[in-house]
Amino acid sequence: MRAHNLALVLQTVVNSADRPSRAAIAGATGLTRATVSALVDDLIAGGLLTEQGPAPRNGAGRPATALALSPDGPAGLGLEINVDYLAACVVDLTGAVRYHFMDRSPTLAGLGELAARARAAAAEDGLALAGAALAVPGLVAPGGLVRVAPNLGWQDVDPIAYLRRTPALADLPITVDNEANLAALGELRAGDGEPTFVYVSGEVGIGAGIVIDGDLYRGGRGWSGEIGHVTVYPDGRPCRCGANGCLEQYAGAAMVAEDPALAAASLGIALSAVVNLLDLDVIVLGGGYAPLFAELSPGIEAEMRRRVLTAGLAPVTLRPASLGADAAVRGAADAVIRGVQDDPATWLALQAV
Amino acid sequence: MRAHNLALVLQTVVNSADRPSRAAIAGATGLTRATVSALVDDLIAGGLLTEQGPAPRNGAGRPATALALSPDGPAGLGLEINVDYLAACVVDLTGAVRYHFMDRSPTLAGLGELAARARAAAAEDGLALAGAALAVPGLVAPGGLVRVAPNLGWQDVDPIAYLRRTPALADLPITVDNEANLAALGELRAGDGEPTFVYVSGEVGIGAGIVIDGDLYRGGRGWSGEIGHVTVYPDGRPCRCGANGCLEQYAGAAMVAEDPALAAASLGIALSAVVNLLDLDVIVLGGGYAPLFAELSPGIEAEMRRRVLTAGLAPVTLRPASLGADAAVRGAADAVIRGVQDDPATWLALQAV
Repeated sequence: MRAHNLALVLQTVVNSADRPSRAAIAGATGLTRATVSALVDDLIAGGLLTEQGPAPRNGAGRPATALALSPDGPAGLGLEINVDYLAACVVDLTGAVRYHFMDRSPTLAGLGELAARARAAAAEDGLALAGAALAVPGLVAPGGLVRVAPNLGWQDVDPIAYLRRTPALADLPITVDNEANLAALGELRAGDGEPTFVYVSGEVGIGAGIVIDGDLYRGGRGWSGEIGHVTVYPDGRPCRCGANGCLEQYAGAAMVAEDPALAAASLGIALSAVVNLLDLDVIVLGGGYAPLFAELSPGIEAEMRRRVLTAGLAPVTLRPASLGADAAVRGAADAVIRGVQDDPATWLALQAV
Repeated sequence: MRAHNLALVLQTVVNSADRPSRAAIAGATGLTRATVSALVDDLIAGGLLTEQGPAPRNGAGRPATALALSPDGPAGLGLEINVDYLAACVVDLTGAVRYHFMDRSPTLAGLGELAARARAAAAEDGLALAGAALAVPGLVAPGGLVRVAPNLGWQDVDPIAYLRRTPALADLPITVDNEANLAALGELRAGDGEPTFVYVSGEVGIGAGIVIDGDLYRGGRGWSGEIGHVTVYPDGRPCRCGANGCLEQYAGAAMVAEDPALAAASLGIALSAVVNLLDLDVIVLGGGYAPLFAELSPGIEAEMRRRVLTAGLAPVTLRPASLGADAAVRGAADAVIRGVQDDPATWLALQAV
């Protein structure tokens, strides 16, 4: 019950437009003022909340103290390994990016070093990490085993075990998720507020994250969104996955540079399938597609006007991602922060040990 | 509260493997025996439940009376209009099909006549209809307006208004839904019990119903599942929808008869897209595909082994529909019955008028 109420109070602060007072939290949650005060004291002692001068006035009486998420509270470490880069970013509890590192040699050894550097930088700032989340362009099993990441050449690779060998990371809780899924979750928090959209991440490989009513749709085994392997030309170019004519062979990073018109048409064909099947009305182009949005969108839209059965009846909005190429690593760090916000009791218990 | 409890009691009977006693219902619902007895009396008086001899014994004492859904209670009228046939079926409250009519001249006038015939046959059996649901191969707006049904040549057709002109149907509550959606719901109740699957209905047109965790996924505007207009050959045959290379042009009824290998390969390409995007592990082939399952499935599976990224990691089950070509009209009648089972209070109130 206390764990539930701690989360309720913290979520109220997270979701408030204004910095709320204890009384405002009591009003919003239905908890008594005494209960809220005790919970707020625990959250302040655990470094999750901070008092920041008077709250917005509401009638007469002594000004109340306003509460806000603490920028010095637990931070999240986002990590990403992709075909041609590594990234690490530290996001604090307020959602602010405190550090962002990149590296052009994408190896697991390099990722361990980058993560250790990010952790050291956070520590110099007095930031403790609540955990790390790693974004990979592949199929991730429960527990973090990467079953296949064709463009990394990975099969049954366990990046958590590898990262744990770096002494600076040995004690850090680490999770692994598909990069497009994490980017979609990042976009859900940072974007235009649409609760339902498909996010398409274009790098060497292409993945999608499908968000329905504010939740990521993961599918039966967590392997949804493999739009890069949707067939666009059945007898077309061979793909690393063993099939022919996969979208990835026409709209992956190399093709976008070489033949943007073909890339756009191919994306339009595959995205038409998405809309015909799922009746989604927002498509977000992220990763390497975001900076090329103006060049790609007319060709995509032309195909969709022809190929989406409902095109004449219901508009589909195509827009670039808010977070650009950083979406996956930001989404990974956000996932850690969100974990603390959803379950502050576990964080507080760890601090007490 | 009474409406909620009436539904709770009726659902307990619907979901019981055995015919339950009043005491068993009280045990399952947490309601008192007195409350259950009063609600059961109302449901018996309204013709929804019937007493059927002793319930299965559970310890000593006087044998209790067993309760069952009444076969004489409100029935559902399922209707279907498709390119080359009409169908009507009457399903009673126990789920049994009481009448099934077909007609090979698919006009709205003919549908009104068929519906009136089905209603008269039900009336001779002493069955009152709770309502009718119409399955159409097209895009249905809230309220029942069919925005587009390309293979019927319909645009903005209001079949409810039309059916109401038949005097025998003037007072009947009528709803309209996409045929693949209704067939998928019928399959959900009649099938192998999988909570998540995609149902593919193959007639002149091809539609799909996507069922996730026991619920039909309708999409933003109710227009999900348009697999017939997923592109399989981008520069291929022109489709009635205005695009080129839609699945419907390669795996619609005519093509299945003319070139079953091409139909199977095309279905395999489109279904691979479904699995790559949604990570579903059960595909149900219905409508005209069901009787041809043995002929079509090897070709479909061959494409899926090549084109589904996770094919080597996670099996996908392809199976024929349990209800065969009747799935949509059965699903339509079931939807009416389900409406009564979910809200018996409204039916009882209508009886009291």
